[in-house]
Amino acid sequence: MFRLARLQNTATSARSLASSFIRFNSTVAPAIPTTQKGVIFYESGGKLEYKDIPVPKPKPNEILINVKYSGVCHTDLHAWKGDWPLPTKLPLVGGHEGAGVVVAKGENVMNFEIGDLAGIKWLNGSCMACELCEQGHESNCLHADLSGYTHDGSFQQYATADAVQAAQIPKGTDLAEVAPILCAGVTVYKALKTADLRPGQWVAISGAAGGLGSLAVQYAKAMGLRILGIDGGPGKEELFKSLGGEVFIDFTKTKDIVSAIQEATKGGPHGVINVSVSEAAISTSTQYVRPTGTVVLVGLPANAYVKSEVFSHVVKSINIKGSYVGNRADTREALDFFTRGLVKSPIKIVGLSELPEVYGLMEKGKILGRYVVDTAK
Amino acid sequence: MFRLARLQNTATSARSLASSFIRFNSTVAPAIPTTQKGVIFYESGGKLEYKDIPVPKPKPNEILINVKYSGVCHTDLHAWKGDWPLPTKLPLVGGHEGAGVVVAKGENVMNFEIGDLAGIKWLNGSCMACELCEQGHESNCLHADLSGYTHDGSFQQYATADAVQAAQIPKGTDLAEVAPILCAGVTVYKALKTADLRPGQWVAISGAAGGLGSLAVQYAKAMGLRILGIDGGPGKEELFKSLGGEVFIDFTKTKDIVSAIQEATKGGPHGVINVSVSEAAISTSTQYVRPTGTVVLVGLPANAYVKSEVFSHVVKSINIKGSYVGNRADTREALDFFTRGLVKSPIKIVGLSELPEVYGLMEKGKILGRYVVDTAK
Amino acid sequence: MFRLARLQNTATSARSLASSFIRFNSTVAPAIPTTQKGVIFYESGGKLEYKDIPVPKPKPNEILINVKYSGVCHTDLHAWKGDWPLPTKLPLVGGHEGAGVVVAKGENVMNFEIGDLAGIKWLNGSCMACELCEQGHESNCLHADLSGYTHDGSFQQYATADAVQAAQIPKGTDLAEVAPILCAGVTVYKALKTADLRPGQWVAISGAAGGLGSLAVQYAKAMGLRILGIDGGPGKEELFKSLGGEVFIDFTKTKDIVSAIQEATKGGPHGVINVSVSEAAISTSTQYVRPTGTVVLVGLPANAYVKSEVFSHVVKSINIKGSYVGNRADTREALDFFTRGLVKSPIKIVGLSELPEVYGLMEKGKILGRYVVDTAK
Amino acid sequence: MFRLARLQNTATSARSLASSFIRFNSTVAPAIPTTQKGVIFYESGGKLEYKDIPVPKPKPNEILINVKYSGVCHTDLHAWKGDWPLPTKLPLVGGHEGAGVVVAKGENVMNFEIGDLAGIKWLNGSCMACELCEQGHESNCLHADLSGYTHDGSFQQYATADAVQAAQIPKGTDLAEVAPILCAGVTVYKALKTADLRPGQWVAISGAAGGLGSLAVQYAKAMGLRILGIDGGPGKEELFKSLGGEVFIDFTKTKDIVSAIQEATKGGPHGVINVSVSEAAISTSTQYVRPTGTVVLVGLPANAYVKSEVFSHVVKSINIKGSYVGNRADTREALDFFTRGLVKSPIKIVGLSELPEVYGLMEKGKILGRYVVDTAK
Repeated sequence: MFRLARLQNTATSARSLASSFIRFNSTVAPAIPTTQKGVIFYESGGKLEYKDIPVPKPKPNEILINVKYSGVCHTDLHAWKGDWPLPTKLPLVGGHEGAGVVVAKGENVMNFEIGDLAGIKWLNGSCMACELCEQGHESNCLHADLSGYTHDGSFQQYATADAVQAAQIPKGTDLAEVAPILCAGVTVYKALKTADLRPGQWVAISGAAGGLGSLAVQYAKAMGLRILGIDGGPGKEELFKSLGGEVFIDFTKTKDIVSAIQEATKGGPHGVINVSVSEAAISTSTQYVRPTGTVVLVGLPANAYVKSEVFSHVVKSINIKGSYVGNRADTREALDFFTRGLVKSPIKIVGLSELPEVYGLMEKGKILGRYVVDTAK
Repeated sequence: MFRLARLQNTATSARSLASSFIRFNSTVAPAIPTTQKGVIFYESGGKLEYKDIPVPKPKPNEILINVKYSGVCHTDLHAWKGDWPLPTKLPLVGGHEGAGVVVAKGENVMNFEIGDLAGIKWLNGSCMACELCEQGHESNCLHADLSGYTHDGSFQQYATADAVQAAQIPKGTDLAEVAPILCAGVTVYKALKTADLRPGQWVAISGAAGGLGSLAVQYAKAMGLRILGIDGGPGKEELFKSLGGEVFIDFTKTKDIVSAIQEATKGGPHGVINVSVSEAAISTSTQYVRPTGTVVLVGLPANAYVKSEVFSHVVKSINIKGSYVGNRADTREALDFFTRGLVKSPIKIVGLSELPEVYGLMEKGKILGRYVVDTAK
Repeated sequence: MFRLARLQNTATSARSLASSFIRFNSTVAPAIPTTQKGVIFYESGGKLEYKDIPVPKPKPNEILINVKYSGVCHTDLHAWKGDWPLPTKLPLVGGHEGAGVVVAKGENVMNFEIGDLAGIKWLNGSCMACELCEQGHESNCLHADLSGYTHDGSFQQYATADAVQAAQIPKGTDLAEVAPILCAGVTVYKALKTADLRPGQWVAISGAAGGLGSLAVQYAKAMGLRILGIDGGPGKEELFKSLGGEVFIDFTKTKDIVSAIQEATKGGPHGVINVSVSEAAISTSTQYVRPTGTVVLVGLPANAYVKSEVFSHVVKSINIKGSYVGNRADTREALDFFTRGLVKSPIKIVGLSELPEVYGLMEKGKILGRYVVDTAK
Repeated sequence: MFRLARLQNTATSARSLASSFIRFNSTVAPAIPTTQKGVIFYESGGKLEYKDIPVPKPKPNEILINVKYSGVCHTDLHAWKGDWPLPTKLPLVGGHEGAGVVVAKGENVMNFEIGDLAGIKWLNGSCMACELCEQGHESNCLHADLSGYTHDGSFQQYATADAVQAAQIPKGTDLAEVAPILCAGVTVYKALKTADLRPGQWVAISGAAGGLGSLAVQYAKAMGLRILGIDGGPGKEELFKSLGGEVFIDFTKTKDIVSAIQEATKGGPHGVINVSVSEAAISTSTQYVRPTGTVVLVGLPANAYVKSEVFSHVVKSINIKGSYVGNRADTREALDFFTRGLVKSPIKIVGLSELPEVYGLMEKGKILGRYVVDTAK
């Protein structure tokens, strides 16, 4: 048996040997401070303090990232409030959409050099050795370590991440714009992959004009799908169509949603992406999906159930699949669509020090669009 | 471009040319009577009459089968009573598990010779040209023609079937025992394929000791799966284990079914086959299935819903798939396991003239095992 | 069990019932002549005669198509010359890219109405009941019936086709432009599906600027793939890029093709479509394909072998797959991309009476672009 | 978003928390010597010395295994002689089928405890972060680290392995018998998975009675496949059939191998596993494989090519896939079949000190069966 490297052309091998050499010797980092600014809280729902905190040290398998920008996600609100059954670490620095520069790395790290761009995702690390990790389902690992939840996250200037899970961001990428791709973008891209569609087939996106939805429309377009969007309210159809959507169903104006969708797609969409958190909308999607098609669950309404009528579920042979956050491959691919310019990520930048106000807006449901914090401010 | 036949060895080609020759000339059938015995009813729930009825004539695409034996399925009861939203043809001869001998064929028929053994399935014919048929989902075809429902079925001595859909039964097969394989066997085999498991993985069969269940256990065994059975009552565990099952959960004796199943399978079965018609059991299966695993719906409880908690559906990334009756390939494969002796089909044979009494037993829920009618009696 | 139709909304059902009604009664055709113009030959390589021949009658499973236009393919030349091991029928009317209007249908035909547009493909019909047909591999059927080869083809004004295999062409489609899609378009689309790529992955097309290649580039673009084209000579790169190609390798100017391709695609293309008929180019593609990638064989050089070094084939875990003509689903999908305007089919129209001259040009290798014959001239 | 663990029942969670606790504190190993016995060589083809060498120290991501037994593979001979283009490390301790007990672990290691059984495989470690690793193709990683090749292997009493790649061997497993499963077993199991067959389909194994072949027959049997074996010489058929094989073709006695195989399998096997290293046999397998079937390459004859006729490759739409060593999931699954008793591994045990003589036998081609060395002797 034999290692693949030699089968590649010599030019590549020479370069890769050179980089291996650097790799094992370049753990010398630029000057890293011992304290930094971060937003931290000490108990669930407690005060969000913007203050000086220690800079963490990377373990042998970790990189230390100088976070430049971090997206703010609704999950951060839930983590702070302690809404979910799994307790967070405390005290906690939240945030799981951080983009920055590698400034130090542990001795085991082979895939990052100092100076590389890197991203912090929801999945900070996993065991890589269980039956789920082995098959690329590392997001489902029972030992998953979660950024901004069980591991201090990206609402600080320096954060650690398992090198194997950290996102590899190509040089030249806009770090503010890429931040929301690391969670929101990857999540919708993974959902579209989960729907298992071929180019030319119809996908319905329920909640098409929202934050996740508008990213989903762009990814679906880049994947050669025909897109039907479902949402309600003024301006939504225009936004949807400007992103590449083909047919828009305004649920505030359509009497029989199921018939309207089946008619527009000549039999129902082959796949449905539920980014909406309406329990009723989710169950309705099992009715309009095309026979043998796939309903994908993404949005997480609290205490909600998807209900599907057994008789028609069987006779139409439909699927209902859950799609969680993406794995390493999904992340690489979702970033690639972004860096090739096929997906735009509209953001509002504010200073990290203003994060507590952003939480306030989220709590009141007054957030429009995606906030990104600049850790330098 | 080029036809494949010539790439095969000459011996085969010569034979296949010879058989082609016969094929296009041998539409001369043995003497076929003009009347026959059958069980017919003239209105939904009306009298089931065992009487002389005309022998049907095959269309150009059909074969005429001298049915020797036919299985009796619960669906036949529903068809007679008119329980379902789609009206049956009237008058109707029921039955969709018929095994017999080809005695005549239409001029288009290429895949059957007079004297071949053939089977009548639930799916008598489909359009073969819609998007669903094109992809092997002919059972889901909007124009499906159903034996014993929209097309006179196998409770008569001579029945017609679309040649393309009719089951090809190998010479020497026991026609009484194979009858239930044509619906029950194919259905559970298809469900197992739908679960998309690898040999060595765990499958749970909910309703493991019933008619469909005990066939499912045998198919699962032949497919190299590890089998956990769920059922209740005396003698069930013994039956289950005698068929190749590994772990039995008696729901009448187990307090926490979910934990018991997850423990026995070290994390939950990779797939679940719901042949039980208990609505509660179906929904429970979404809880104990392994992360990234597949719940298959097969049984058809009336007015029932499968309910799955969205949060855990997403985080565990599970699937719920409906599986309907098998297609042509599923039928061929399910029959092959049977004819190779890997699956046994225990039956009770009665005369066709006794069919009304069998309906009576079914209506009272007193059926044990699979009844097969002998059309000669 | 239950037929799916009733699960759809009533509007659809009503319409489909209505059309079923028409379907079973509308076998009355418009006036069809008894003779027509066609190009026929009586022995392999014999005179190609443009003359009056009888109009064929459809069998119960066939439609009769008034062919308006037919593409001319290199295969037609081979069929006429008798180049291949399987003998053609004689006398023979060639052609397998015919587009026209249904003017009559057999009594079994359910999926076409008089007046519908329909296409004649290479695969005129297959048995639909063998193990290959059952799984959608009807092109590989040992009993395939081939248009313009074992069944009189589209170089006549009226031709028959098995209704199940005949292409369903949407109303309003340009019949001249769609003709080459029926073979060339479907073939490259099927090859791209065979490569089993995800949007965003790299596909290399060897022979990218030729007839098949330029269609392949357009389909690949519509499928969200990144495209590297390989071809040689002036004007090729411009054509390639105008169709959506990203990187062009001119084999007449590039010393180390393998390195150049691996460099441009950062490790080699995930898939390679060999429409070129160069034996050397085909074998070279096994060297530059990405580890775990797929080399697809489409072009059919005479007496050629693909050679792959076993050691590197194993260590890189690559695949070499043959892709033949598309099946019913591939045809529907390839047509859909065309009718949605995503693929253009540049053609030169001449009269059917001029077909012998077109054969002459093909024989001399002087064909540029795709000829389509107008059967009215 | 949320970690999965809490969705499991409490009993499991409690246990897993407890084990997490142990996990992060139990790096204290039993007394480990500083020197040990091993077989080492200092230059390619140089003297194989059984002598005292230092015990290696595990890196943060590694475990230290007290190797009890190690299989001896032909690859070890090639590594010693320096036959292959990639240079080995020097000096080198060979061996890549080692089974033993974990005696120490690095601080990052989460999936092994001191006292667990563990196995050393050919793939000692990989980067886990490249496009190939991300998709489970870690064996194809350009940065693969290979046991007994680029990393000191299992022909010593204490060896290190990347914890993520090291095989997890269930308690109670016979360490001598399991050793060859770690390479030979996993390799043939992976090849069978690569063939992508369904239970009930035919697989041909070329070289069925050899070391790899006889393991392949047993795995194929456990996977529900029908097995045709090809080999030559006395006693081979009996061995093959005793392991579960169905049809044996003795190539020394069969004139037309292709016809004989196609006849026995009614059209050719759906998959072929080439463990034989005969170049001619490999190319022949492209002729007898069933249309749309898959030829898998496993054996590595030197400087050999697989040759497939393009015309028939396309018209039959066959695949030729390379299969290298298994990944983490393949290893777990292959071990599971072994520990469940479905696969037997016949071995001859000798002392580690006798290894040089075993190399001598291999060099002379006099090895029969699988040698396993006992490191205590």
